[in-house]
Amino acid sequence: MASAIDFYFDFSSPYSYVASEEIEALAERHGREICWRPILLGVVFKSAGSTPLTEGYGPKARYSVRDFARSAAFVGVPYRHPSVFPVGAVAASRAVLWLQRESPAQAAPFIHAVFRALFVSDRNISEVPVVMELAQKLGIDTDRLTAGLQEEAIKNALRAGVEQAIARGVFGAPALFVDGEMFWGHDRLPQVERWIATGPF
Amino acid sequence: MASAIDFYFDFSSPYSYVASEEIEALAERHGREICWRPILLGVVFKSAGSTPLTEGYGPKARYSVRDFARSAAFVGVPYRHPSVFPVGAVAASRAVLWLQRESPAQAAPFIHAVFRALFVSDRNISEVPVVMELAQKLGIDTDRLTAGLQEEAIKNALRAGVEQAIARGVFGAPALFVDGEMFWGHDRLPQVERWIATGPF
Repeated sequence: MASAIDFYFDFSSPYSYVASEEIEALAERHGREICWRPILLGVVFKSAGSTPLTEGYGPKARYSVRDFARSAAFVGVPYRHPSVFPVGAVAASRAVLWLQRESPAQAAPFIHAVFRALFVSDRNISEVPVVMELAQKLGIDTDRLTAGLQEEAIKNALRAGVEQAIARGVFGAPALFVDGEMFWGHDRLPQVERWIATGPF
Repeated sequence: MASAIDFYFDFSSPYSYVASEEIEALAERHGREICWRPILLGVVFKSAGSTPLTEGYGPKARYSVRDFARSAAFVGVPYRHPSVFPVGAVAASRAVLWLQRESPAQAAPFIHAVFRALFVSDRNISEVPVVMELAQKLGIDTDRLTAGLQEEAIKNALRAGVEQAIARGVFGAPALFVDGEMFWGHDRLPQVERWIATGPF
């Protein structure tokens, strides 16, 4: 069976959001599964000595905000730049890992709900009550999830996931791995698709 | 008449090269002219506080070299990573400005010749004799061109062009402007084309 597509994402990354809206259809067209891997770009950037796009050189920061919206519109994905940005994604990322262990079928719907809350509805997804509200709407047991967010095993799994991503060469998001090949950026999805469809080029 | 596409490029930029191989067909499909604008990324990066992709964080540098070749292959453009990289593009860039003044019809063919010499034939285009060899093959008067490279007006025009690009918000290459909208990266050409074809989105 063909291997899964590893999809590394940070909830606070606009390009991760845009790619998250496209990757399932792409994977489905080619009979691939997706392995959703939440990471924390703050940790990755510290390791890489880089900064968020919107916090560096002014013209690049301004261009980036424009490009987020334009790139989303280009592929037909709704986008509103969040009023609080970037936001911390620790709670939402731990929730993903907890769901992947406890209720795997709910992980992808939860990921989409969090991304859309931030990038469409302008909710501050760094706040635990917001995360719980989104979980509840999906029928997730929020008492258990609340406890899960404080579990050492879950905390460690997120830390380990970020470290593993860095060790694998991830320096930004989204980062996708297909049969060992890394692709960085939502704008590489056409290359990902051809790579899957017709092999290395 | 529709305005020209401003195409800012550095001869040492792989993504500028890839885009240079595609932009003329794109422009022609929509009846647009191209205004080729050589810049020096070294100066731009100094202003932006950034570094060449291949000189920063190791994993990102390694990915970039891989992505140059893969992105070129994706659009059917031949690519061989130069053994000397990045290279200085002052002489070749001044030559472009001289041609644009003295023999405009030869500017675009010369630009392609320089890019291909570097990214296909692995020639060190920072060397003036290499630039002259390429010019000669195109029937350009290399005695006059040699003198032109030392003209104060040409030197100043290149400096002014780089400063103007920075003032306009350029922080990397290629950078394209279409009807006032800036696009950064060869991977934005599909957006450039839609912008021209159907207007802002």
